[in-house]
Amino acid sequence: MEHLKMHSMNMVDENVNKIATIFPNCVTEAKEANGEIVRKIDFDMLKQELSNTIVEGREERYQFTWPDKKKAILAANAPISATLRPCKEESVDFDNTQNLYIEGDNLDVLKLLRETYLGKIKMIYIDPPYNTGNDYVYEDDFAEDADEYLSRSGQYDESGNRLVANTESNGRFHTDWLNMMYPRLKLARDLLSEDGVLFISIDENEVDNLKKITSEVFGSSNYAGEIIWKNSSKNDQAYISIQHEYILCFVKNKSANLGEWLEKKEGLDEIFKAFDEFKKKYGTNWEAIHKAALEWFKQFKESNPIYDSKHYSWMDEKGVYFPADISGPNFGQYRYNIIHPITGKVVKEPASGWRYPQKTMEERIKQGLVHFGKDETTIPNNKVYLADTIYQNLTSIKYKDGRVASKYLSSIMGSNVFNNPKDISVLETLMHAINIKDDDIILDFFSGSGSTGEALINLSLHNQINTKFILVQIQENLDNALSKATGGTKAILKNAISLCDKLGVTHSLSELAKERIRRVGKKIKEEFPMTTQNLDIGFRVLKLDSSNMEDIYYSPEKMDKQDLFKDNVKQGRSDMDLLFQVMLEKGIPLSSKIESKIIDGETVWYVDGNYLVACFDKDVNEETIIKIAKEKPYYFVMRDSSLANDSVATNFEQIFTIYSPDTDREVL
Amino acid sequence: MEHLKMHSMNMVDENVNKIATIFPNCVTEAKEANGEIVRKIDFDMLKQELSNTIVEGREERYQFTWPDKKKAILAANAPISATLRPCKEESVDFDNTQNLYIEGDNLDVLKLLRETYLGKIKMIYIDPPYNTGNDYVYEDDFAEDADEYLSRSGQYDESGNRLVANTESNGRFHTDWLNMMYPRLKLARDLLSEDGVLFISIDENEVDNLKKITSEVFGSSNYAGEIIWKNSSKNDQAYISIQHEYILCFVKNKSANLGEWLEKKEGLDEIFKAFDEFKKKYGTNWEAIHKAALEWFKQFKESNPIYDSKHYSWMDEKGVYFPADISGPNFGQYRYNIIHPITGKVVKEPASGWRYPQKTMEERIKQGLVHFGKDETTIPNNKVYLADTIYQNLTSIKYKDGRVASKYLSSIMGSNVFNNPKDISVLETLMHAINIKDDDIILDFFSGSGSTGEALINLSLHNQINTKFILVQIQENLDNALSKATGGTKAILKNAISLCDKLGVTHSLSELAKERIRRVGKKIKEEFPMTTQNLDIGFRVLKLDSSNMEDIYYSPEKMDKQDLFKDNVKQGRSDMDLLFQVMLEKGIPLSSKIESKIIDGETVWYVDGNYLVACFDKDVNEETIIKIAKEKPYYFVMRDSSLANDSVATNFEQIFTIYSPDTDREVL
Repeated sequence: MEHLKMHSMNMVDENVNKIATIFPNCVTEAKEANGEIVRKIDFDMLKQELSNTIVEGREERYQFTWPDKKKAILAANAPISATLRPCKEESVDFDNTQNLYIEGDNLDVLKLLRETYLGKIKMIYIDPPYNTGNDYVYEDDFAEDADEYLSRSGQYDESGNRLVANTESNGRFHTDWLNMMYPRLKLARDLLSEDGVLFISIDENEVDNLKKITSEVFGSSNYAGEIIWKNSSKNDQAYISIQHEYILCFVKNKSANLGEWLEKKEGLDEIFKAFDEFKKKYGTNWEAIHKAALEWFKQFKESNPIYDSKHYSWMDEKGVYFPADISGPNFGQYRYNIIHPITGKVVKEPASGWRYPQKTMEERIKQGLVHFGKDETTIPNNKVYLADTIYQNLTSIKYKDGRVASKYLSSIMGSNVFNNPKDISVLETLMHAINIKDDDIILDFFSGSGSTGEALINLSLHNQINTKFILVQIQENLDNALSKATGGTKAILKNAISLCDKLGVTHSLSELAKERIRRVGKKIKEEFPMTTQNLDIGFRVLKLDSSNMEDIYYSPEKMDKQDLFKDNVKQGRSDMDLLFQVMLEKGIPLSSKIESKIIDGETVWYVDGNYLVACFDKDVNEETIIKIAKEKPYYFVMRDSSLANDSVATNFEQIFTIYSPDTDREVL
Repeated sequence: MEHLKMHSMNMVDENVNKIATIFPNCVTEAKEANGEIVRKIDFDMLKQELSNTIVEGREERYQFTWPDKKKAILAANAPISATLRPCKEESVDFDNTQNLYIEGDNLDVLKLLRETYLGKIKMIYIDPPYNTGNDYVYEDDFAEDADEYLSRSGQYDESGNRLVANTESNGRFHTDWLNMMYPRLKLARDLLSEDGVLFISIDENEVDNLKKITSEVFGSSNYAGEIIWKNSSKNDQAYISIQHEYILCFVKNKSANLGEWLEKKEGLDEIFKAFDEFKKKYGTNWEAIHKAALEWFKQFKESNPIYDSKHYSWMDEKGVYFPADISGPNFGQYRYNIIHPITGKVVKEPASGWRYPQKTMEERIKQGLVHFGKDETTIPNNKVYLADTIYQNLTSIKYKDGRVASKYLSSIMGSNVFNNPKDISVLETLMHAINIKDDDIILDFFSGSGSTGEALINLSLHNQINTKFILVQIQENLDNALSKATGGTKAILKNAISLCDKLGVTHSLSELAKERIRRVGKKIKEEFPMTTQNLDIGFRVLKLDSSNMEDIYYSPEKMDKQDLFKDNVKQGRSDMDLLFQVMLEKGIPLSSKIESKIIDGETVWYVDGNYLVACFDKDVNEETIIKIAKEKPYYFVMRDSSLANDSVATNFEQIFTIYSPDTDREVL
């Protein structure tokens, strides 16, 4: 029986393996400082393989660096012995939902998710602190002075925050932020599927730094563009009043995602509406409709100078259309006569002939897809219907006043409790554009008020698909934020704290975000009872915590005689806690179905049917083990101390060899 | 008599002086490799002064670097012996204009301008190559492959281009561009006045790099925001279709420019127009006007979701207004009765009392500046007139379809000869916002089609002010660009070359830009004959060239006997050429008034009256020198070889000592 590792992977090992695969000659064995001989990369040999295309030491290169950047890489690669503990009572539909809400420092959470979700996330959207230096400290962690930072940093440490407080210096403002972002972006990339897409909200304060480090982590060739989101109409700032922010976009791999991204055109609803009214007014008097439409369009374009649609000023039984060119390509290979349907005379032919062979053209005329002029002197046109061109490529300018999202969320929560929440319609546009479909997983590891979750629920509803979200959010302390806040932010935080009191929860952002998703899910189900029957509005709550295992589990060589009688599982940790830590290690989706049976008085856990079977009870006897083995689980996990007596332990392996030799059985 | 240097300044000397001023103890004398003892900075001593706040060697720091960044700093500081030669026949109103059009590599031009314009430029706008990697090579110099680059680079060298062609490597794409921009930005900063402002157009390809290097050169605290310019409606790009570009903004010194920048609100013309029509329709029926206005506004806001003006839905004799709060601050110190003008009863008072003391309020009511409800039950309001709020702070989002500028310029030039010219109305908005006023100088050293010049002429016309532009543009070869162009760019270049042929000028961008400014100037004068009488639509053309002086001028120690009889001025250089080189060295504005007189048969030049008097003729005799000295010039310059004979040379100093001892006299 193997022992479970019960800690996250050391990614340095993985990197060494990658090198070993390409250059096996560069892997060697060398002595550590402690005398141990271990596998190492022979860097001199590797240099030879790369001959003169390396740059090292103080040679000048195109690079962006900051203090502790190297440590940030170490931080991303280092293993941790933390775990995620389920919290059924805070969850919604724990048994059936595919969604996860994870509370804790996202660096640790990303490391824990890595084994299970490596290459499996279709889209990551994040809204990290903008590092604006404003007063909303729980949004902008790095703009505080050193004392404030240290005090809050200590508090964060309980939640597993790894940010290192530097000594005071001018440079720390950007440095701390970069050291936070860099390892998280590295881990984010690992989680994305080959055709996966990353979107990051940011403003002008760090956009250039963010673009540089994300280009470094993802490769600049995987930069996919940036969206300008005009979300404010304020003009009260000195110099230039900034009314916009950015959404940077990178793909994991451009050759796996070709970027055929579509969004619904803006303004089309207005056009549809206008034409419906013309039809009501003028019936089938197409000429009157056209005249009215032209007039309407003139105004529409005037007041929408940014709108650049074709002039859909015509209409027929099939709908609104515009007349498009019907002439042939350069050489005029299609030349024949066409008769005008009213005058009965041969219509004027384009200089380069017709676009289609005669048969096709006759078929199109029959189907009413050709637009004729009032007589034969006008060259006919193709009809291009509005309904066929609702989607356009994803474009870089979006308008959505930030107050819309604020007002909407206030109505959900009863008061304004979130500072500058993201607009869910913009997020849904992005999700739709990159073609989120059944079973896709969307991750947001700076999830704040939970907008990404709601946007995805909406997308699933509107497209009748089943998708999954993973939201990660640290339990940001609202009291702490309030003590530093001023102005409007202060008022919002007071509302937030008062709502927490009403709900009887701790004063934290994550509590409000969970409540928000509960409320919007309920609201959607009530509003659309017919189309939400299969809609997953639930979520499993998981909380980052220290490993379930005592330190001696990781360092058995340090065990002394007294420890032999100690339990290697920490007090207060439940079966479910242990089960989730095993799932993390074995890469089993955290949303998997979990059931339990009582066999001979022992609780046996079943994850995803018989994929993982586990029993953490004491005094498990042979008969129970035989019953479990007969179910042929893929994994079977029990505790070292579970076996009733030495004879059971002796027979354990034999039982499985007889009943289920393929079962991977491990102990903790 | 001093000898003129006839080369630009070595900025390293200036930097050494700056250190010497602050830390005189750190300047010492040390031996050069050649044995010469020179003034140097004692860096060990300087380190002591800065104790432990320095970072050096391989210590990690927040920095952005690239190959040859250090050389780029050297490039910015190194002196050159080039000059600017006037070209009267290509100029417009050479004798009176204050504007300059300078042809040549902008790095050299900036160095030459430094002495004269140091700290004197109010605004710099540049539109550098975006480094997009597209086919329009004369706009995007660094995206070519190494062979293309080398061939064009050779050609550029004749015009004084200093870009070094690296060997082929992946890094060169950004590296070359950065090495081009960095020294130019350094020089640009020197030229700006303390309250000066820099605007740079750029797109997503280099915006992050540009922001980083400009932050480095200007100091990140002088970053003033960025403008998003939506100039396209295309949606044909994979991933995200980019419809915008950026204008980055930095000020030289935020404490000298507080950023109280105003622009005209968008949409206001529409509102004014609508109200004019209501007034025509309803006369003084204010209630009807208000009702119609409310309805109109509803529609206006609907179709202008980005528009965020107050509801100016009221009107009186004085114009359109909206009713604003008239209540007092927190403590309600102003409490008194106000009588409703119609019902004669006491009106309802705000909970916190009135905003003004009673006397002020009564005066406001008398002037009709208070808006009353229909009876006393409504609290009155202040009237805020539209006409008083036409300007708002400069905001970050601008819309202007790039095709508008293209179409307009095509109509001026007869065909489309410029690729993506900048829109002059956007540039004028920026100029207006930063409050360009009489005698301000605006510099554009990547001036392309000359839009900055036209925008400034428009600004001067609209505000009836006198401003000055300096446009710099290298003579980009259109034939060369054509050989590499494809698609629409090819068609534009063909138009451009054909227009050059028609005009009988060489095939270059600068020729077309000069022609453009000539044409728009003429057009404006014709269209607005009454208001353009004082409008300066002229420009002096100057061309970068090698120094007027032979090499022996700079290295007299290398002169041998034969050289004694050689002329130290290059063949083909005129008096005017020499005069401008002297003006450059003495820091005399290049737009200064230039006159000449014949004295005793010799041509004597007068710049800015008697500020600089010069005579470059041979055989100048004593009487002529006496006449000049009697005019008491500030500077007098003549040639070494000008003096008729040795006795004149001997008496020269004595003549000035008698007639004008304060004249600074120099020879070349």
